[in-house]
Amino acid sequence: MIISYDDLFQFAKAILKANGCSDSQARKSAEVLLSADLRGVDSHGVARLSGYVRLMDKNRVNTSPKIKVVHETPSTGVIDGDSGLGLTVGPEAMKLAIEKAKTAGSGWVSVRNSNHYGIAGYYAMMALEHDCIGIAMTNASPLVAPTFSKERLLGTNPIAVAIPADKEPPFVLDMATTTAANGKLEILQRKEIQAPSGWIQSADGEPTTDPYGVQNGGALLPLGGDRDHGSHKGYGLSAVVDIFSAVLSGANYGPWVPPFVAFLDPPSDPVGKGIGHFFGAMRIDAFRPAGEFKTHMDNWISRFKNAEPAMKGRQVLIPGDPEREMEKERRTNGIPLLDKVVDDLKSLGERFEVKMPEGS
Amino acid sequence: MIISYDDLFQFAKAILKANGCSDSQARKSAEVLLSADLRGVDSHGVARLSGYVRLMDKNRVNTSPKIKVVHETPSTGVIDGDSGLGLTVGPEAMKLAIEKAKTAGSGWVSVRNSNHYGIAGYYAMMALEHDCIGIAMTNASPLVAPTFSKERLLGTNPIAVAIPADKEPPFVLDMATTTAANGKLEILQRKEIQAPSGWIQSADGEPTTDPYGVQNGGALLPLGGDRDHGSHKGYGLSAVVDIFSAVLSGANYGPWVPPFVAFLDPPSDPVGKGIGHFFGAMRIDAFRPAGEFKTHMDNWISRFKNAEPAMKGRQVLIPGDPEREMEKERRTNGIPLLDKVVDDLKSLGERFEVKMPEGS
Repeated sequence: MIISYDDLFQFAKAILKANGCSDSQARKSAEVLLSADLRGVDSHGVARLSGYVRLMDKNRVNTSPKIKVVHETPSTGVIDGDSGLGLTVGPEAMKLAIEKAKTAGSGWVSVRNSNHYGIAGYYAMMALEHDCIGIAMTNASPLVAPTFSKERLLGTNPIAVAIPADKEPPFVLDMATTTAANGKLEILQRKEIQAPSGWIQSADGEPTTDPYGVQNGGALLPLGGDRDHGSHKGYGLSAVVDIFSAVLSGANYGPWVPPFVAFLDPPSDPVGKGIGHFFGAMRIDAFRPAGEFKTHMDNWISRFKNAEPAMKGRQVLIPGDPEREMEKERRTNGIPLLDKVVDDLKSLGERFEVKMPEGS
Repeated sequence: MIISYDDLFQFAKAILKANGCSDSQARKSAEVLLSADLRGVDSHGVARLSGYVRLMDKNRVNTSPKIKVVHETPSTGVIDGDSGLGLTVGPEAMKLAIEKAKTAGSGWVSVRNSNHYGIAGYYAMMALEHDCIGIAMTNASPLVAPTFSKERLLGTNPIAVAIPADKEPPFVLDMATTTAANGKLEILQRKEIQAPSGWIQSADGEPTTDPYGVQNGGALLPLGGDRDHGSHKGYGLSAVVDIFSAVLSGANYGPWVPPFVAFLDPPSDPVGKGIGHFFGAMRIDAFRPAGEFKTHMDNWISRFKNAEPAMKGRQVLIPGDPEREMEKERRTNGIPLLDKVVDDLKSLGERFEVKMPEGS
C-alpha cells in the first residue's frame, strides 16, 4: 500500500497525541520518524510507531518530559531527556549544539535518559541551514558482537555527518557501524535468500549466512565482518559512538542499553539512565569563509561524482545521493508500506480511534 | 637487526638536525616518528625517515617553518604549517586543540600546508594527560578508490580516538579507513602470500588478491571491501577525514594531495596548500566529573575484555591493547628492523656523517 507523506504524517502525529504527547512534541516526533521513510530507511520510520507505543504502554517513555541541560561549558553540554521519546529529545539537543557553534565555533552535546531517536541523519542535517557541519551518533539495543566474542554488547551505533556545499547538494553520510543494518536482514528474510558472509554470526560465534541468525541468538557483525577484513575497526568505531553517547553523558552503555523492543525488560542493574546520544555542530566560518568552503565542497563532490567508474555506467555516489533521490520520489508519489506495517498501523488506528489514511 | 629505542631516537634526531631542523624540532619529530615503531606500526616509523629526507632534498619540506594560527574562535582554529614536517606541525596543532578545550570545553583545529605526520594515535594520546578525549585525522597520498571507481582518489585517511580510563589503560583507537593499510600488503609481499578478498582491486577496478595489485596501478579498498560488505561506509568515513582535514583548512584534498613519495611530483593544479590534518580535544569534565567518567570507562573496558570469547582462549581486545603490549616489549628489548630499513638508515648515516647505532 502507498500512502502520501502528508496523510501518514497526520496519522503518526495523531497516534502520538492520543498517547499523551503535546501537539508540538507529536508534530516534531512524527516529522523525525517519517524522515526515515522519506529517505528510504524503512526500518527506522513509521514501521516503528507501534514499537514506540508499546514502550509508552510500559511507561518506559515519558510523554511529558522536562528536558534539562544539566551541565555546560561554552562549547559542550549534557542533556537529561527525562525518559522522553528520542524523537523529541534529539532535536532539542541538536539545537543546543548548533547554538553553541554560533557563539563558540563548535557545540558538542551528550545526552542521557533518552530513548531511540529514529535516523541519525535527520539530526546531522539540522546543521546545514545554519552553515554548520552536523554530526549525530546514538547507542542502541545490543545486537552486535565485538570482534572475537559471541556476546552481543553493542548496538548498530550509527554515525551521521552532514556537510553543506554550494551548488551541489550536501554531503550526508548516515551509516550503521555494522557491515549491514538489521533492516537489510529483513529484506533477505522476505526474499528468502542467504546473507553475504561477514554480516552475521551464529549464537556460537561462528560465521553464518542464515538471515535468521540474529533472531536465533547470533549477532550482527561490526563493519569489516571479521578480523581479516577489519572488523576490529567497525568494533572500535561502534565503541567510540557508545562512549561519546553514554559514558560522557551518564546513560547506559554496552550490554546495559535498554532494548527497543518492549517485550524485553531493561537490565535490572543499570549503569546509567536510558540510552545515550551525541551531537556536534561546527560552524564553517569558524574555520574559513563559508562561501570559500562551499565552493571547494562543490569541487570535491563533482570530482568524485565524475571519477572513472569501475563498471561502465555505474557512477560513484556521494554519501546522501541515494537517500535524496528516494525522498524526492516519495514526497511526490507517496510512501510504500509492507502489509505487515499496514496491519500494525490499522491496529493502532482502531485502538486510538484515529482514521487510517486511504492508500493506493 | 634490533636497535634500542634510545639509540634509534638519537640517530633519527641527528639525521633531522643534519637536514636543517632545529634541536627542539628534531627531538619532537624523532619522538613522534619512533612512537610508530614502538607501537608496532612499522610502516609509519623510522622506515620512513629516508622518505622524509628525500622530500627535504626536493625542498618540499621546510625545515624552519613558521607555524601560524591563521583563524580562530573560542573552540576552533586553523593552522598553516608553512610546509613544515607534519611531525613538527602536528604536535603544535594538537596543543592548540587541548588549550582551547581547557577554556571552551572543546577544541578543534584544522591544518593546511603540512606534510605527512606519522601515526595519528600519537596526537590523540597527547590529550590523555590533560583528562581530555583526543581525536586526530589526516589525509594522505591518494591510493584508495571510492566504491564503484577505478581511480585512486583518497588516502588511507586514519581516524584516531584516545579516551582516558582510571585503573584500566586508556582506550586508543587508531585505524586506517581502508580494509587493510599499506603496511599489511608489504608483509604479504615478503611472505609471498595472496591478499584476502576485499583489500585491493586491480587497475581495471576488478577484485584481486595479488599483493602487488596497488603497485601495478590498482588501489586499496575502503573498509568493507565491496558494496555488499559496506565499502560505501569506509569510503564515507575516509571522505569525512579528507573534508575535515583539508576542505575546512584550505589544504589539498582527494586526488590533489601531494604524494609522500618524492619521485612523484605534486599535482600541477593544486586546490590548496600541502596536506591537511584535523585534531580535536574534549575536556572530560566539560561533560561530567572526570573521576566519574573514568570509573565508568573502567567498567566499560572490563565488561568488554571479559566478554565470552567466540573461540576459547581468544579474548576480546580493547582498542590500543596490542599496541601498548608492543610498546612495553620494544621499550625494553629494542626495535627490530628489516634489512631493507637497516640499509636505508646506514646510507643516511654515511651521507650525513651520523654514526649508525650498533644493533644486535
